[in-house]
Amino acid sequence: MTSDNTVLLTEAKAGVVTLTLNRPDQFNALSEELLEALRNALAAVAQDDSVRCVVLAANGRAFCAGHDLKQMRSNPEQHYYEQLFAQCSRVMQSIVNLPVPVIAKVHGMATAAGCQLVASCDLAITADTAKFAVSGINVGLFCSTPAVALTRNVPAKKAFEMLMTGQFISADDALAHGLVNDVVPLDQLDARIDALVRSICDKSPVAVRTGKGMFQRQRGMNLGDAYDYAGQVMAQNMMAEDVAEGIDAFIQKRQPVWKGR
Amino acid sequence: MTSDNTVLLTEAKAGVVTLTLNRPDQFNALSEELLEALRNALAAVAQDDSVRCVVLAANGRAFCAGHDLKQMRSNPEQHYYEQLFAQCSRVMQSIVNLPVPVIAKVHGMATAAGCQLVASCDLAITADTAKFAVSGINVGLFCSTPAVALTRNVPAKKAFEMLMTGQFISADDALAHGLVNDVVPLDQLDARIDALVRSICDKSPVAVRTGKGMFQRQRGMNLGDAYDYAGQVMAQNMMAEDVAEGIDAFIQKRQPVWKGR
Amino acid sequence: MTSDNTVLLTEAKAGVVTLTLNRPDQFNALSEELLEALRNALAAVAQDDSVRCVVLAANGRAFCAGHDLKQMRSNPEQHYYEQLFAQCSRVMQSIVNLPVPVIAKVHGMATAAGCQLVASCDLAITADTAKFAVSGINVGLFCSTPAVALTRNVPAKKAFEMLMTGQFISADDALAHGLVNDVVPLDQLDARIDALVRSICDKSPVAVRTGKGMFQRQRGMNLGDAYDYAGQVMAQNMMAEDVAEGIDAFIQKRQPVWKGR
Repeated sequence: MTSDNTVLLTEAKAGVVTLTLNRPDQFNALSEELLEALRNALAAVAQDDSVRCVVLAANGRAFCAGHDLKQMRSNPEQHYYEQLFAQCSRVMQSIVNLPVPVIAKVHGMATAAGCQLVASCDLAITADTAKFAVSGINVGLFCSTPAVALTRNVPAKKAFEMLMTGQFISADDALAHGLVNDVVPLDQLDARIDALVRSICDKSPVAVRTGKGMFQRQRGMNLGDAYDYAGQVMAQNMMAEDVAEGIDAFIQKRQPVWKGR
Repeated sequence: MTSDNTVLLTEAKAGVVTLTLNRPDQFNALSEELLEALRNALAAVAQDDSVRCVVLAANGRAFCAGHDLKQMRSNPEQHYYEQLFAQCSRVMQSIVNLPVPVIAKVHGMATAAGCQLVASCDLAITADTAKFAVSGINVGLFCSTPAVALTRNVPAKKAFEMLMTGQFISADDALAHGLVNDVVPLDQLDARIDALVRSICDKSPVAVRTGKGMFQRQRGMNLGDAYDYAGQVMAQNMMAEDVAEGIDAFIQKRQPVWKGR
Repeated sequence: MTSDNTVLLTEAKAGVVTLTLNRPDQFNALSEELLEALRNALAAVAQDDSVRCVVLAANGRAFCAGHDLKQMRSNPEQHYYEQLFAQCSRVMQSIVNLPVPVIAKVHGMATAAGCQLVASCDLAITADTAKFAVSGINVGLFCSTPAVALTRNVPAKKAFEMLMTGQFISADDALAHGLVNDVVPLDQLDARIDALVRSICDKSPVAVRTGKGMFQRQRGMNLGDAYDYAGQVMAQNMMAEDVAEGIDAFIQKRQPVWKGR
């Protein structure tokens, strides 16, 4: 399955869906069309039980420069903007709520809503050539929706500094502050992503989907509620055939053979 | 505008208000008078649309040693203490709720409610000569109100360690654990603060005030509510003349000229 | 007071209770019996006003390998699992809600619910020989209840990575990501724990118990509620005889003599 939608490329191979932002000449700015394409692609993944994980990548020099400023300027109505930001927020929350892990593969600049995409993914691997900013403030537009994602990844004072100064941070700083999971040289980015994808695909699909959902849902709960919820989820997970197989394989010191149920 | 209130100096210049704790011989201990002066100064800033940001500094060897222990000991009534801590908590929350960013400029020891001041500011730059502690526990008084601010900046285990041992951490440790944004040699502290202030003053006042308010408000919300709120805020922000100017300037590769509306 | 319960050793000395997991040949797996013993020991500590702090240690090569997989496999009923995870979650929350600080003393591998134990303690010191993982996913069982504790200590992206890959992290990485307070060579672990215990025992018991309780309770509150609560707690704390003594001793530059009230 491969689509060549002009703004978003979708490739599915062995349970791994790679979504590639494909407006390279616009630094992959998130036009309405690209947001809609992302939303549709994520909705399709959410319905497809064969998908194991998603990689979010980008073509061209930049990873993603955020919203399409020219398109925004040509629609100067508050109602239009409300709908645009609601659309964008739905895409970001689709990533969080997707039943499988989403990995950002960052090779270049990620700014504003582009930085928010990285923050919204469950995991992020970046090349050392990338840099990150929430730079809307430089054009008078505070990165309010990106702030929602950023502050749920990066400590308060650093997040505020990034949002208020609009300055870039390096890939190493992004790692130090929790925005990404790892930094590698650009020529090792494919291999690092492949290793992470393989690690997830080697796991029981039941466990991966259980974990993706419960991790995000319990984050906002108080401790007691989170434990009640997590205990229920884990008891259900225990009833999966894969767990019986997994524990037996562990005790017998052999590789498990997952059935995915 | 300059006041020479004995306990708090206020200087306003080009939209930047510098509040300087001025009880150097008492290590700037937060007496009732100083808390009241801070509250009044912050209330005045909140009403003044010309203010762009606030710097919180201190005179003498220490930044701030927290509450005034002698004053506290001479009023041994629970009702008095309740009022005192409520007064102090209002000051700390005034910083959080102020419509413009507040930068702590730390040159020396910041302990107990003094450390809480640093944690409560949006941004903090410290000289390498400073050190930080929540040391109330050394006199039998757990730093309960400082814990509120500290745990919203510093990871749980480190915050608990600081509060339970009362031990000092260095400026570098404060940076590593998210309590401050940057550490510089003492003789570069003025320049580093000036650069940060200038960076904020170069931005559209609309964007800065939008961001300060929304950043703090969305922190406690769940993800869906935070996105709904942020989307509304950002759509409103888009309608500002400054954003039209900012985007046009960006597209035309020139410096924007802000109108502040 | 020393018990030689086969699965959990309890030693109390000078206000310090050391609980030692004692199923060394099973890597201290948390069988029903061990969870029950932990629960009873923690309940006894909660009732004992003479206890100043608790150290949670372990015998054998591992710190704790999590749940007892063999026992789990031999009871393949969802209702059994619900009760088991509820029992385990109660133990973890007993640590959080205990009136005194609990310090994890980690010398070897801490995996799954063993890693959760470390995350649930207020403080954790680890030998550089230890390593940490939430590895349930390797047997098809996502570490859902451990995720609750882990995500309240470790930043989101790193926590997700640990939970989804099941891979070990080193003691140094555990420190860098907030899971532990300090890393020492194995032969200095006893001395480091003793120093931390002594530091807590040197404090006023009133302050320590006040702090342990308020720290945990205020974490989930919004800022205003947390400040109201903390102000009340601190005003009450001020009325303790120990605070009068503590402040007087501080002013007189002498060591305080705590009465514990």
